[in-house]
Amino acid sequence: MSTTNTQVRLAARPSGLPKPSDWDFVEEPVPTPGAGEFVVAISHLSLDPAMRGWMNAGASYIEPVEVGAIMRAAGVGKVTASRHPGFAVDDHVSAAFGIQEHALSDGKGVIKIDPSVAPLPTYLGTLGLTGMTAYFGLLDIGKLQEGDTVVVSGAAGAVGSVAGQIARIMGARVIGIAGGEDKCRWLTDELGFDAAIDYKHENVRRALREHAPDGVDVYFDNVGGEILDAVLTRLARGARIVICGAISQYNATDGVRGPANYLSLLVARASMTGMVVFDHAPHFAEAARELGGWMREGQLVSREHIVDGGVRAFPDALLGLFDGKNTGKLVLRIEPD
Amino acid sequence: MSTTNTQVRLAARPSGLPKPSDWDFVEEPVPTPGAGEFVVAISHLSLDPAMRGWMNAGASYIEPVEVGAIMRAAGVGKVTASRHPGFAVDDHVSAAFGIQEHALSDGKGVIKIDPSVAPLPTYLGTLGLTGMTAYFGLLDIGKLQEGDTVVVSGAAGAVGSVAGQIARIMGARVIGIAGGEDKCRWLTDELGFDAAIDYKHENVRRALREHAPDGVDVYFDNVGGEILDAVLTRLARGARIVICGAISQYNATDGVRGPANYLSLLVARASMTGMVVFDHAPHFAEAARELGGWMREGQLVSREHIVDGGVRAFPDALLGLFDGKNTGKLVLRIEPD
Repeated sequence: MSTTNTQVRLAARPSGLPKPSDWDFVEEPVPTPGAGEFVVAISHLSLDPAMRGWMNAGASYIEPVEVGAIMRAAGVGKVTASRHPGFAVDDHVSAAFGIQEHALSDGKGVIKIDPSVAPLPTYLGTLGLTGMTAYFGLLDIGKLQEGDTVVVSGAAGAVGSVAGQIARIMGARVIGIAGGEDKCRWLTDELGFDAAIDYKHENVRRALREHAPDGVDVYFDNVGGEILDAVLTRLARGARIVICGAISQYNATDGVRGPANYLSLLVARASMTGMVVFDHAPHFAEAARELGGWMREGQLVSREHIVDGGVRAFPDALLGLFDGKNTGKLVLRIEPD
Repeated sequence: MSTTNTQVRLAARPSGLPKPSDWDFVEEPVPTPGAGEFVVAISHLSLDPAMRGWMNAGASYIEPVEVGAIMRAAGVGKVTASRHPGFAVDDHVSAAFGIQEHALSDGKGVIKIDPSVAPLPTYLGTLGLTGMTAYFGLLDIGKLQEGDTVVVSGAAGAVGSVAGQIARIMGARVIGIAGGEDKCRWLTDELGFDAAIDYKHENVRRALREHAPDGVDVYFDNVGGEILDAVLTRLARGARIVICGAISQYNATDGVRGPANYLSLLVARASMTGMVVFDHAPHFAEAARELGGWMREGQLVSREHIVDGGVRAFPDALLGLFDGKNTGKLVLRIEPD
């Protein structure tokens, strides 16, 4: 077994897209567990648009990653050494282990997962925070009702692809917005979306007029920017906009673009509400059971986009998110040296 | 009695601030009621920022005023002739009579008012749609709770001054944002606001940090623009923003400025919800009783800013709203020739 633990640490706070010099690679010995601790060999790490926000200084819904610290990331892996009564060698676990190959843990925030139920990367996607975000965003914040017209942006991404499918399962009419024909075809042909709009090649406002003639009841927004403004022009009375993210704005160096059409909220008596998935933690287990059930029944497709190359591939892989390279959940596979 | 009814009609849709050429003055004979009709001599007309929106083409929460039509406005007056069984000569009434001196009505949307309970202009302000907007915006949309920190913009205006007082009566800590020392002094010294911020001479973000150290629970927004963005930086967890209006943006010729800090909704798990007062019409009578009770007890000050000069003074008086000339409800007094 490897004795080296390669880590990715934040070297500098980026301006705009993260650059290679914003990261440090550090090699440390694989840790040895003390009393009440265990060590995990990480097999997969979750790559999320939200990571870009964690790299900024200042108060947000979560503390920023400090310069010099291991980059925060959710991961899954297997216990390789343990002096913790609750975790044994060969247990599979999931937690915010960070971008590294081996993690030392005291068990706080760690949950056990079962690779016979679903592949490990799925515990970072549909059965992880990704799925939870889609589930609670749509149901609790979006207050989805059967028969609603639902629009999801970033629809071929991790959260969007799950959110759209949940909406379909719940009896909504679902329109996805994604970049490129392949992604759009995947949404309609594989995931059962009622329609998909390719924002790179279509006029989104016009397409929404066509696909949502009676207006949009729930808009699950992962992207912000022009697409948010386009959907604001098509709200049904009493519409609910879920602000889950704004990937189009995370790397803006000249300030975030605010939604110029926000006064449509008044015209439509609509609301725009921000969500943070951690608030729903007390109900994660129930949601995971429901999502897992839908997966078993074949109603819900979970797709992970796996990138190889280990932790050293992290900086490039992260940029892929902002390029829209991934379809489904972007996961970095870790192969300790 | 006069035999001429001077009317103000929309001559052209304005770009930016309405110009004199956007209005036509038309003189017609005072109408004669047919069967089921009555005629009202209008004594006071309500001037509202929302009027600017009604002058634009396109769908909104209410039909636009057509070019050539009498400008829409709420008014109060006295019945001078009637062939309607429900309305007698000398009855005092309130309705959307339009900018004119005499109105013909079939009674639809007309309510009787009692000048012995409150002066007629108060039925356009605190006991009219203005008061209803403040009341339902704060309680139904803002979900005001005792102990909340409430911020009101346009706080010395018609809706804002009532909204802030209701919040105080309900046990909230109230911070008003207004333009100029006199208005701010009025808010704190006469209306009992806990604090007032003069946006013309103070840094609003810094002042909010001082006056709302624990964040803002309810923001009642009448102005939009920079002030909305400033308040977005100070939201408490679970804050509610009521989008009542955006007077700073109504005459923008280069597009509305969207709130660049809208992602604070996510950080604070906050919501931004649009309201239209007409939706609450079934409960207007109860609200008016409660507001009237507070006025009688001296808890709620109703202030009307009366402009003289009759309907011919309307175009200039309307511009006064956008200059912030009024303190309290802007009302145009009509003196038929």
